[in-house]
Amino acid sequence: MDLVTTSPLSALSADELAARLTSVREEYDELKARGLKLDLTRGKPGADQLDLSNDLLGLPSTYQDRSGTDVRNYGGLEGLIEMREIFADLLGVDVANVVCGGNSSLTLMHQVLTALLIKGGPDSPRPWSQEPVVRFVCPVPGYDRHFTMLAELGIEMVTVPMNADGPDVAAVRAVVADDPSVKGMWIVPTYANPTGSVCSPEVAAELMAMPTAAPDFRILWDNAYAVHHLTEDEAKSADALSLAEASGHPNRPIMFASTSKITYAGAGVAALAASAENKAWYLQRLGFAAIGPDKVNHLRHVEFFGDADGVRAHMRKHRDLIAPKFAAVEEALSSRLSGLGIAEWTVPTGGYFVNLDVVDGTATRVIELAKEAGIVLTPAGSAFPHGNDPNDRNIRLAPTYPGLDDVRAAMAGVALCVELAALESLTRG
Amino acid sequence: MDLVTTSPLSALSADELAARLTSVREEYDELKARGLKLDLTRGKPGADQLDLSNDLLGLPSTYQDRSGTDVRNYGGLEGLIEMREIFADLLGVDVANVVCGGNSSLTLMHQVLTALLIKGGPDSPRPWSQEPVVRFVCPVPGYDRHFTMLAELGIEMVTVPMNADGPDVAAVRAVVADDPSVKGMWIVPTYANPTGSVCSPEVAAELMAMPTAAPDFRILWDNAYAVHHLTEDEAKSADALSLAEASGHPNRPIMFASTSKITYAGAGVAALAASAENKAWYLQRLGFAAIGPDKVNHLRHVEFFGDADGVRAHMRKHRDLIAPKFAAVEEALSSRLSGLGIAEWTVPTGGYFVNLDVVDGTATRVIELAKEAGIVLTPAGSAFPHGNDPNDRNIRLAPTYPGLDDVRAAMAGVALCVELAALESLTRG
Repeated sequence: MDLVTTSPLSALSADELAARLTSVREEYDELKARGLKLDLTRGKPGADQLDLSNDLLGLPSTYQDRSGTDVRNYGGLEGLIEMREIFADLLGVDVANVVCGGNSSLTLMHQVLTALLIKGGPDSPRPWSQEPVVRFVCPVPGYDRHFTMLAELGIEMVTVPMNADGPDVAAVRAVVADDPSVKGMWIVPTYANPTGSVCSPEVAAELMAMPTAAPDFRILWDNAYAVHHLTEDEAKSADALSLAEASGHPNRPIMFASTSKITYAGAGVAALAASAENKAWYLQRLGFAAIGPDKVNHLRHVEFFGDADGVRAHMRKHRDLIAPKFAAVEEALSSRLSGLGIAEWTVPTGGYFVNLDVVDGTATRVIELAKEAGIVLTPAGSAFPHGNDPNDRNIRLAPTYPGLDDVRAAMAGVALCVELAALESLTRG
Repeated sequence: MDLVTTSPLSALSADELAARLTSVREEYDELKARGLKLDLTRGKPGADQLDLSNDLLGLPSTYQDRSGTDVRNYGGLEGLIEMREIFADLLGVDVANVVCGGNSSLTLMHQVLTALLIKGGPDSPRPWSQEPVVRFVCPVPGYDRHFTMLAELGIEMVTVPMNADGPDVAAVRAVVADDPSVKGMWIVPTYANPTGSVCSPEVAAELMAMPTAAPDFRILWDNAYAVHHLTEDEAKSADALSLAEASGHPNRPIMFASTSKITYAGAGVAALAASAENKAWYLQRLGFAAIGPDKVNHLRHVEFFGDADGVRAHMRKHRDLIAPKFAAVEEALSSRLSGLGIAEWTVPTGGYFVNLDVVDGTATRVIELAKEAGIVLTPAGSAFPHGNDPNDRNIRLAPTYPGLDDVRAAMAGVALCVELAALESLTRG
């Protein structure tokens, strides 16, 4: 991930700024007059990406796995062994640590959190719901659904900065060391949503080893983009389970992943990986809520991919489709904003998002201007707990779903709005 | 449902009983010598039943629903409209009240219970987990997974008798009227597990109208066997939602159903139906845990069935396959045990189970004898909370999974074991 930093526009005189504001306003009025209808809000695959997996619709060709188990019937709580093997390979863990579930890793995370609240983990003094307060460390900017889930479950959030190599470890240490109510943290370790950060092995090792006041501290390791590379420089996810075990905290991390952005966003397969004790704990809880996952869909995916290398080859087809869209975002932002000193943005090497930071206090205005011009962006602050970006600076861009021409048109408009909002702000000051 | 009652064996003299015991023991030894390996434990569809749905494996033929929505992508939390329409028709409710989910109605029930514990319902004074104690009314014998789920969640169970027309309403009334800790009850309204009882409209009306001390009393209406008829005398499920609304308790019932025993037990579609307020509450909770269900599987089912009448026609094919197995159970039990006065059993007109009551204190022994002869039955007491059948009398028989010949062989053995255990008991007395 590179960070493109621009040079200051603030060097202009008041008159120059006013003139520029007038000119950019005219340009914006022309943009509005075009009546665009574009949407960069969510990290959804485009239809061309979904088409890559259409052979799934005619699969599976049989209804038995290689052991002869009839996948149509009940049972098999931990999922089809062949599917677990694929995830084990992709996540770099032992197949014995992997469980495959339904279509949503978000659901697996929610199951784990509700079980911790209602029952407590294998090393919890009591169910989390019986604690006076439960807190979670949240690197920001981060994934909005992580934060809304915690809010729903009554878990308080403590933010720490997300750096280019992962969460700010010193900040995390300071939060978790003495406060036993801090029970866990979120991390998207690979091509994080929205910054594209990749957690380094060093940061991961520190997170797994650091002292925590809570004996049952959990790191929910949401490796949603483990294999979602945008360049040939493919990031390798840190080996969280081994690092945790080596540091004497085997139960600390619980990994999550899915094929949502590999095959079908609505009809993929999700997986969880954890220590033997955590896995047994999870399966015991799950056994009271389910008889088994959709093993037909597991077999469908196994036939489609063959093995983990099949997934990797498939991901290169995705890369070919979406890398040009990310390039279009970079092109639009840098061609208009480079050198102006009013914006910073990421050039991610994987994942689904570009993180755009604008002049403090103008993110809401940029999004408003874009909306009036027919370009819908994720609401301001959505990458922060309770939607509260304290600097009103952060904008998440999701360029995968629209077509390439729409991304170009939308991003030219966004860049214009960034400049207009900055000029409004600078001329007010 | 008919209840076959036999006449007393106890009329025999002590010598006659002793002689008969010797003879039946010899017969049992011969049974053991056959080295059977048969399993009547779980209500699983047989492979021939699963074969009825094999066209599913090649579906869907498209990836758009009739509104043009791409079912491969994220979204659509309440499920595909076409699938919801089918469940609405089958359950006799308005489509606006229906949500379709993943492959397991058990999971939907667990979601609802955990949400009630963590958040409380729309009419709860506080989350259930903040109450000193939460109790549930459990008609017995009942479904073991209902009871183990409550035990897991720390909810206490109060049993009431299950009659031929549904739960004993007077007993239910007595439990719920004055104790606000009694927050809900289970019911399998149609062809109940394991008794085959069908809840009459009168009983349903009373359950929906009865005064309850808890303002947020919930009836989890698990209509797992709504269309699972074994005869042409097809039971119609009571209209719980309308009855509840008419009596001023619209939020009391939450219905559950699935295609697990219609298409594939592991890869079907589950549904929930409830009042507008309950449904909005459920979807709000669900929205923090999922982005949408597997809509491809919804569309797959919609194409396979066409409409609710397609489901009904399909169920007649199931009936043709499994009704002979239920007849074989009845034949084996009555040919050996009729007139002996040592057993009562149900002759269900739908569902998946036969309920067998043996001489008090001998159910565990019958199951032990059967096991030693290679016939595995559901553990004694499993139809009661905490596996505790106070009379050690109840045995649940599940004849759908084995082949017809195996059902015959197993049930002849079971009947023999019932008589042997009874004779052991009578000769001890």
